[in-house]
Amino acid sequence: MNDTISLLMNHRSVRKYTDRPVTQEQLEAIVAAGQMASSSSNVQAYTVVAVTEPELKNKLADYAGNQAYIRECPVFLVWCADLSRLKNAADTHAPEARSYEGAVENFVVATVDVALASQNAAVAAESLGLGIVYIGGIRNDIEGVSEALGLPDHVYPVFGMCVGYPDPQHGAGLRPRLPLEAVLHMNGYNAEQSRRGVEAYDETVVRYISERTGGQRTSSWSEQMAAKLTAPSRLQLRAFLESKGFNRE
Amino acid sequence: MNDTISLLMNHRSVRKYTDRPVTQEQLEAIVAAGQMASSSSNVQAYTVVAVTEPELKNKLADYAGNQAYIRECPVFLVWCADLSRLKNAADTHAPEARSYEGAVENFVVATVDVALASQNAAVAAESLGLGIVYIGGIRNDIEGVSEALGLPDHVYPVFGMCVGYPDPQHGAGLRPRLPLEAVLHMNGYNAEQSRRGVEAYDETVVRYISERTGGQRTSSWSEQMAAKLTAPSRLQLRAFLESKGFNRE
Repeated sequence: MNDTISLLMNHRSVRKYTDRPVTQEQLEAIVAAGQMASSSSNVQAYTVVAVTEPELKNKLADYAGNQAYIRECPVFLVWCADLSRLKNAADTHAPEARSYEGAVENFVVATVDVALASQNAAVAAESLGLGIVYIGGIRNDIEGVSEALGLPDHVYPVFGMCVGYPDPQHGAGLRPRLPLEAVLHMNGYNAEQSRRGVEAYDETVVRYISERTGGQRTSSWSEQMAAKLTAPSRLQLRAFLESKGFNRE
Repeated sequence: MNDTISLLMNHRSVRKYTDRPVTQEQLEAIVAAGQMASSSSNVQAYTVVAVTEPELKNKLADYAGNQAYIRECPVFLVWCADLSRLKNAADTHAPEARSYEGAVENFVVATVDVALASQNAAVAAESLGLGIVYIGGIRNDIEGVSEALGLPDHVYPVFGMCVGYPDPQHGAGLRPRLPLEAVLHMNGYNAEQSRRGVEAYDETVVRYISERTGGQRTSSWSEQMAAKLTAPSRLQLRAFLESKGFNRE
């Protein structure tokens, strides 16, 4: 154990912020730390749009399902997968060649690249005493978000991230995770470990939520996941991504 | 600046390791730190297979384009996007309902989830004095990797990660990144900032490589990216993912 691991182990999503601003210097330190994450073949296939203008932030909050913390946080980061720099490079230096920005491989590369950078940034932010929460909700109306930010072709907004000083009056508990045995397998996939882990976790989650809600009956993790997976999942995403040049082949 | 940001800013990929083993306790601490990363709606859609058996490690090294560091590192982690726990939950608790594990949305969710966890794990490993390198090469023969690890449906191996103590005789320099202005835009996408940043970076990269190779002529970043984007990019990935139940709708 050390201070960095202790910081990682104490992560919780923050959805209530104080008025204290995030300085430009902090923002730049956070994103610079993000940039030092590994990148596939050094493609650095991401751009982060930092939104501080209240009107634009409000618009994005509407698109993301009206989440108040997007309005209230001082800085809202929109993490975008960005193959446009690569596409421009190919157009300039290999104008005759066929290029593969539409391959699912490059869709995966860009999506992973942006996620690695964002997680480094999240850790950097928390090390400065700031709190964050990831916002997948920007994919609810991904076309609206994309237009509001003026995103060109070969760029798509993957997720948002609120950043700000946590309101100490709204401290959230540490949410328990799946038991380690469910997600760490040795020398081969072990479905039985996964199954046992989920069984134990189902009980943990019921106990955890029940304790925090004063004994109200709640669903297990498996029940929550069943409900999630059987709800239509942003099915317009496929056509949007293709229209932007991603995931075409 | 603080110790954690300083750790993040000093990341470099490590491709040469000493014989010193990684203990099971370290491995578990690293993966547990990974688990504390944010997860979309708490789906925790990933499994990491830790490979320590030399024969299996050699096999994976072959599949990944014969990279010696996969053979030589004491632990090779294969980070898998895993929707199988969700699919099992849906089959158990909502057997009559249609489920959406094949939606591109859930493909993105699982891919982002595993990347966030892996980056936390990478930071934890480095905080313990270990070194890591991400291995996208496991997607070269993703079917071979998948079979060797016995991965079931709704699971795909996204990338590998070598972990071990860095050989001090092979210290690598810090690789310069794109200028901040290229990747951090305020309140909207700014293609001109991106363009200017790439222009400056092209010169930085030529100078950096030239200095490290004793003045040999080298290509700029844009030229490297043009070459990369015009090379066929693991085009078999699409069919493999579909066969595993991902990215189908």
